[in-house]
Amino acid sequence: MKLTFLSLFPEMYQGVFSSSIWKQAEEKGQVTYSVTDFRQYADNKHNKVDDYPFGGGAGMVLRAQPIYDAIESLQLSKDARVVLLCPQGGPHTQEKAEQLASAEEIVFICGHYEGYDERIRSLATDEISIGDYVLTGGELASMVIADSVIRLQSGVLGNEQSAKEDSFQTGLLEHPHYTRPAEFRGMKVPDVLLSGHHRNIEEWRKKESLRRTYERRPDLLEDYDQSDQEEKWLNEFKNND
Amino acid sequence: MKLTFLSLFPEMYQGVFSSSIWKQAEEKGQVTYSVTDFRQYADNKHNKVDDYPFGGGAGMVLRAQPIYDAIESLQLSKDARVVLLCPQGGPHTQEKAEQLASAEEIVFICGHYEGYDERIRSLATDEISIGDYVLTGGELASMVIADSVIRLQSGVLGNEQSAKEDSFQTGLLEHPHYTRPAEFRGMKVPDVLLSGHHRNIEEWRKKESLRRTYERRPDLLEDYDQSDQEEKWLNEFKNND
Repeated sequence: MKLTFLSLFPEMYQGVFSSSIWKQAEEKGQVTYSVTDFRQYADNKHNKVDDYPFGGGAGMVLRAQPIYDAIESLQLSKDARVVLLCPQGGPHTQEKAEQLASAEEIVFICGHYEGYDERIRSLATDEISIGDYVLTGGELASMVIADSVIRLQSGVLGNEQSAKEDSFQTGLLEHPHYTRPAEFRGMKVPDVLLSGHHRNIEEWRKKESLRRTYERRPDLLEDYDQSDQEEKWLNEFKNND
Repeated sequence: MKLTFLSLFPEMYQGVFSSSIWKQAEEKGQVTYSVTDFRQYADNKHNKVDDYPFGGGAGMVLRAQPIYDAIESLQLSKDARVVLLCPQGGPHTQEKAEQLASAEEIVFICGHYEGYDERIRSLATDEISIGDYVLTGGELASMVIADSVIRLQSGVLGNEQSAKEDSFQTGLLEHPHYTRPAEFRGMKVPDVLLSGHHRNIEEWRKKESLRRTYERRPDLLEDYDQSDQEEKWLNEFKNND
């Protein structure tokens, strides 16, 4: 998989490219990274990438030309995904990450400070927002999406099982975890986890996963297909409220 | 404002600290950054920060001790916010960014690969998730939240107006933007934006902002208090579907 980031701030990426699973995925030959500074494609005298908005108003607008020319320079394959990071995009989700994970090539278009000239959107196969908050630019958002995609590449995570049990992959939030010591600053690990009774442990985890979702993210339960036992637990939680 | 990141990957932050508004905010004396590698606080022989989960299962769990000791070493003020990045947290929002923006001191606890020992949650004033997708660690999420907070510090953005008109600050997605040229590769700027007629331009922008929200993020309209004119436009969009 080839990941290319179109950005005015190439230096933002360097620490991330060389850390953790990003580095490992590159060393294993599974992913390659590059940043294209699209300022170098601006065809005007001072390499200006932005200009005033037609119709007036505050703020500047990112010009179409440098982005078009930068994309053309990449000579993308027909199947390449071109992801435009913007607050107007569809929300990023685990499902979207899984879709993108099967691509051979992804280009991320990262604006900064300002809006895109509307004509830039024609280049994108996907317009994505990572959440309902405002960021200075698309760079951090592109790293977030790339990270969610890289970790799904086969062999990148040491333990394949680990990805499957994560929050959002099951549709529920994860159950609480504990490791040694059994008592830390007066806070004890629940007895069941020390019992060695596997069926009870599994049941406790399922119930606590459901409880956490009920308490913190009830919206996730709307799409969740619950078992009879889970329905009983949900009624128990509701009666205790 | 003082931002401290507890992380096992300090190098991930360096490019971001020294770029764009992060750098400017530091140079203006508005924000300071530091990373604490909490591995150095691990009290066991090999500075191990994780251990097997009580009750068995795949994956490792981040130990409580290194995080507790790292937090204590920071000698936080009473009002400091301690943000735990985790998929089980409340969703990050623009409102949350505004709340955090008034803090004098924020510490971000960034786990990596694995779950937190449940007792770590007692340290947090806020548990936040930046979206419903799985990341390798909390580092990128902490940068996203910090970015959304830094840009709200007074004087950081060149143009104060710019922040106010952004998507999510008005409750609607932004209207389309255009800059020169008026025609680019056969794609034209809407005539109204070239007309110089300010009232028509403003009306067009309001309508297109509403249209974009209606088409892409109808969920945002549920909480939006629409004017009579906007209600008429919404009916028009619905009739055209």
